[in-house]
Amino acid sequence: MDPVPRHVYEGRIIRVEVRSRAGTDYDVVRHPGGAAVLAVTPEADVLLVRQLRPAIDRPILEIPAGLLDRPDEDALSCAARELREETGFRHETIEFLGGFYPSVGFTDEYVHLFAATTASLPEAGPEEGVELVRRPLTDLTAAARSGRVRDAKTALALLLADARGYGP
Amino acid sequence: MDPVPRHVYEGRIIRVEVRSRAGTDYDVVRHPGGAAVLAVTPEADVLLVRQLRPAIDRPILEIPAGLLDRPDEDALSCAARELREETGFRHETIEFLGGFYPSVGFTDEYVHLFAATTASLPEAGPEEGVELVRRPLTDLTAAARSGRVRDAKTALALLLADARGYGP
Repeated sequence: MDPVPRHVYEGRIIRVEVRSRAGTDYDVVRHPGGAAVLAVTPEADVLLVRQLRPAIDRPILEIPAGLLDRPDEDALSCAARELREETGFRHETIEFLGGFYPSVGFTDEYVHLFAATTASLPEAGPEEGVELVRRPLTDLTAAARSGRVRDAKTALALLLADARGYGP
Repeated sequence: MDPVPRHVYEGRIIRVEVRSRAGTDYDVVRHPGGAAVLAVTPEADVLLVRQLRPAIDRPILEIPAGLLDRPDEDALSCAARELREETGFRHETIEFLGGFYPSVGFTDEYVHLFAATTASLPEAGPEEGVELVRRPLTDLTAAARSGRVRDAKTALALLLADARGYGP
């Protein structure tokens, strides 16, 4: 492994560097990582957000999530804050589900997943540009189990929660 | 959405562009996408590969996978070919499990997942630089269900196969 990677791009969130190994160049996208939370109401509804994602040029349904880009914030606090900011709901309980590398082929991004419970009603409205969507946990779990949930963190959180026996 | 993204980096596999929306710049990593395969032997062992991944600077255990960068190859053929090249095993059956976006926040990468069965023995040795690892499906499924499988495509393939009742 080349000990001195070559920096080729610095963006707002990511930066790209090239590492050489055995004569081959590998593009590596450095990413701050993130935290995401599967939040469930007392009615067994999941709180999802739908927002336009420039990377795929269309809106997609996701669990609330955010970047780990604050030096003084741990992953659990980040997940709780993003839940409150994006949906207006505050967590009552929150626990760790697991963590994963979304794409080890080209990025060091690592995502921490949490499961939370909330009250029935929000404290505030959803974030601007974000549509709040409530869906029954049983419906979403069935969708995830049959491979129909396209967002990796959302699919993994649903399948991990299912494996631990969450839900009504 | 800015109809004309600005290209900022062209790598061997990825390219990076900046899209503007509502006054904010978004870095987008264009990626060809990939295919991955959970391959199981008649002994109910999963065929995994361990290789050094420059992006995370260490080896990690993964199901065989490859890039969808050949214009004349579909995702199933790609998964079957990568299985053969990386492990030396040829598939006997192969079927679609699901597909997912690993990280919609910054990349358009999309991964197609498959489940395959193989013979007990390989036709050839594993690819250079790749260590072939056989692990019981039941052990790996238990690891995935408890959130201990770190590679997203491997965790998702195991959990999707589990949901469909694969295994002994």
